[in-house]
Amino acid sequence: MTDDQELGITESKEYDTGEWYAEVVRKANLASYAPEGMSGFIVTRPRAYEVWERIQAHLDGLFKDTGVRNAYFPLFIPESYLEREKDIVEGFDPEVAWVERAGNDELEEPLAVRPTSESIITPYISQWVRSHRDLPLRVNQWASVVRWEATETKPFFRTKEFLWQEGHTAHATREDAWAETTRRLDQYEATYEDLLAMPVLRGAKPEHDKFPGADTTTTVEALMPDGKSVQGATSHYLGTSFAEAFDITYTDEDEESQLAHTTSWGLSWRAIGALIMTHSDEQGLVLPPALAPEQVVIVPIWQADTRDEVLSYAEGIEADLTEAGIRVELDDRDERNPGFKFNEWELKGVPLRMEVGPNETADGSVTVVHRPDGESTEVDREGIAATVEDHFDEVYAKLYAAAEENLESNVREAADRAGILGTLGQHGGYVKAPWCGEEACETEIKDQIAAEIVMVPLDDPDAEVHHGEECAVCGEDATETAYYAKSY
Amino acid sequence: MTDDQELGITESKEYDTGEWYAEVVRKANLASYAPEGMSGFIVTRPRAYEVWERIQAHLDGLFKDTGVRNAYFPLFIPESYLEREKDIVEGFDPEVAWVERAGNDELEEPLAVRPTSESIITPYISQWVRSHRDLPLRVNQWASVVRWEATETKPFFRTKEFLWQEGHTAHATREDAWAETTRRLDQYEATYEDLLAMPVLRGAKPEHDKFPGADTTTTVEALMPDGKSVQGATSHYLGTSFAEAFDITYTDEDEESQLAHTTSWGLSWRAIGALIMTHSDEQGLVLPPALAPEQVVIVPIWQADTRDEVLSYAEGIEADLTEAGIRVELDDRDERNPGFKFNEWELKGVPLRMEVGPNETADGSVTVVHRPDGESTEVDREGIAATVEDHFDEVYAKLYAAAEENLESNVREAADRAGILGTLGQHGGYVKAPWCGEEACETEIKDQIAAEIVMVPLDDPDAEVHHGEECAVCGEDATETAYYAKSY
Repeated sequence: MTDDQELGITESKEYDTGEWYAEVVRKANLASYAPEGMSGFIVTRPRAYEVWERIQAHLDGLFKDTGVRNAYFPLFIPESYLEREKDIVEGFDPEVAWVERAGNDELEEPLAVRPTSESIITPYISQWVRSHRDLPLRVNQWASVVRWEATETKPFFRTKEFLWQEGHTAHATREDAWAETTRRLDQYEATYEDLLAMPVLRGAKPEHDKFPGADTTTTVEALMPDGKSVQGATSHYLGTSFAEAFDITYTDEDEESQLAHTTSWGLSWRAIGALIMTHSDEQGLVLPPALAPEQVVIVPIWQADTRDEVLSYAEGIEADLTEAGIRVELDDRDERNPGFKFNEWELKGVPLRMEVGPNETADGSVTVVHRPDGESTEVDREGIAATVEDHFDEVYAKLYAAAEENLESNVREAADRAGILGTLGQHGGYVKAPWCGEEACETEIKDQIAAEIVMVPLDDPDAEVHHGEECAVCGEDATETAYYAKSY
Repeated sequence: MTDDQELGITESKEYDTGEWYAEVVRKANLASYAPEGMSGFIVTRPRAYEVWERIQAHLDGLFKDTGVRNAYFPLFIPESYLEREKDIVEGFDPEVAWVERAGNDELEEPLAVRPTSESIITPYISQWVRSHRDLPLRVNQWASVVRWEATETKPFFRTKEFLWQEGHTAHATREDAWAETTRRLDQYEATYEDLLAMPVLRGAKPEHDKFPGADTTTTVEALMPDGKSVQGATSHYLGTSFAEAFDITYTDEDEESQLAHTTSWGLSWRAIGALIMTHSDEQGLVLPPALAPEQVVIVPIWQADTRDEVLSYAEGIEADLTEAGIRVELDDRDERNPGFKFNEWELKGVPLRMEVGPNETADGSVTVVHRPDGESTEVDREGIAATVEDHFDEVYAKLYAAAEENLESNVREAADRAGILGTLGQHGGYVKAPWCGEEACETEIKDQIAAEIVMVPLDDPDAEVHHGEECAVCGEDATETAYYAKSY
């Protein structure tokens, strides 16, 4: 497509991360902004949608292997259903888009375009659960939801409509539901690590920042290179609040009626935003091999008299890689020179470039160049598919190591208010500090520096280090360790 | 889930197809009706959604192998965009659901919940196409759309929201765009035949029943056992009408500006409805093996003293089938007797039942029963996975043959109005008749018997037999062969 031709990133990742991000998204053909009158919406172009499909396939496999079945519930939720769980309506009402006219009729009851589906899924779970033998019951749907947020659009990070999956489960006991909550958090963590090459921190949201109606909201948080945290996915233990609102009861083994415990958990296309932001650079998009639409590009380097020979050699390599299931592109365009092609494929985020010219053709070799750092190696033509897989592992390891280094060097401690503010102001990243659990203390920090408590660690022995100490903000007894950070 | 327990279909497929269909959908746990206030919507339960996922995977593979890339466009379309192609707005306006209030604001411009996405996708295709080198351009999305139809809901056949895929392409020439239109129709036909075990007829819709804005609408039509036709999927050659409305021009090889030719094509979950209606019977759901959530159920038949031995034998078979990638369920519930289990799995549409008792265990054999007709065979335990694959082929062949027999014996000819009305009234099915091409002649039939022209054959030599004859309704010169049928 023609706009591919506009190469080169002009903005600086370090000094203007927002502009740089927008430029990468646009020039790597990942997304376009929606029409006028629809600010906050984006068009997800095929190159980004392919990344989403791969994340989806990976996560869907993990879910199905652990007892989850997909289903599809209506796009709309009657207002009266949304109102049945009071926290949900309070939490989401300001962000809901309403349908009140359809066909040529005014509707008797306004329909909410789903901002999340607990209020339409839970009543059905209630119908489907009668006995303890029906539990656990797990459904998931891949769908889009709409939240009419006023803040500025950032493709994938913050859009009024976004793609996600939402899982909803019911269990006999608190223990089972809690185990489900952490199982899904584990799967999100593993997906970020194994597929997106991003380490994450696991924690719980503070009480005042939970999902509406939840008992506990757990989160995986990823640190962006600009020092801000991204909520990568959340998994909620909902307690019995939705079961009460929508009457999910079951008869236990003693024929007694019991309330079920429910969970919900979701990962959205924000993962794509975090992925782009984490690995990409001032040449453009960088992707882990497992997620890249094209994993290898072969750029032949020829003169008129060597063209046929080099092209034929390159085609042989392309055939071997295709045969091995590797996604490869042979860029044999005559109208572009190799330098242009290098730039274009770097912009598009192809993890491995192969250069083959008359020397490689004569030697039976291939020059392999890693996208993230330009490291170049001459390898044997023989066994090229296996060699490529090794280089994919190396590229993944480099990406993961860089992200891990960023995370590890940006978790700092502070013991008082000045320390929190000073450290966040100077370095960004996470600042760990003892906390009393009161929202007011977070508000004090937020008012000064627009940072918040993004999580308190979950099941981490180090989390307890601040117990017995004083809240860094108010000086009262600390009960938790808070991770303060600016966030997306 | 508890409502599984309600076994047995009480309605007659032959005498009350509608009630029978609704009962199968409900008792086989395929779908539930949406809440009050949302009539026309359904909840797609996991067993039906799995069928949809398999149809989706098959079709998506065909698309990707032929140059299509998936993308995702916004759920909403600004009213002014919908109005830019006048036929679209006339065709869909009465069925559109509108969002006019979101968050706490009245929107400046109403947003349509997409009834189909030409009006939001075409403007982007226009941005992405500059030169003939950008063509063909093909995108597809898997999404739900909303059409506020007033007619009664029939799960999968007619719902206000439905899941589908919609492909949208742009081409340099009429020939290329027409080839695309028929390529997609071929793929729909192949999906019905190979995967759903349903023969279909290919044709074009009459001029007056085209997709709004289309030059030609092609269709695959399937004949249901009650004699009504179902439009199984459509593929539209849109000519240059959308390219004109949304300005898709490209520079050709001579640097001249040209209008592109576009197509769109879609298959919805109506395919699931047609599948259920075609193959199922008065014991419940019948599915081809490739689409069944469970392909094989093993029902062990034991007494107290043979239980352990039989169960262990059954578990060995289960392990072999699982190893071979076959979806198998071993029903080892103690609280249910074999007869109950037979009925339950028949209701749920499992294509192959295995019965293993003390005799089979002693003989090293397995009794295999085909779902569609109860045919029972004793086969060797040895090599069971390969044997099962053969039986899957047999089951598929039986289903296809029955559907083909229904189709072939229900295409009849008529030469005059009385013939059309009499044949449709007596037999249903398709009545072929010479037609002048005027809508008025169809209207005459429709007013009398609620049948319509569902298609005129496409690229079929037999289609021409009526040329030179007289229109069966008005007696003017016939130009086409019309297929009259009642339809869903």
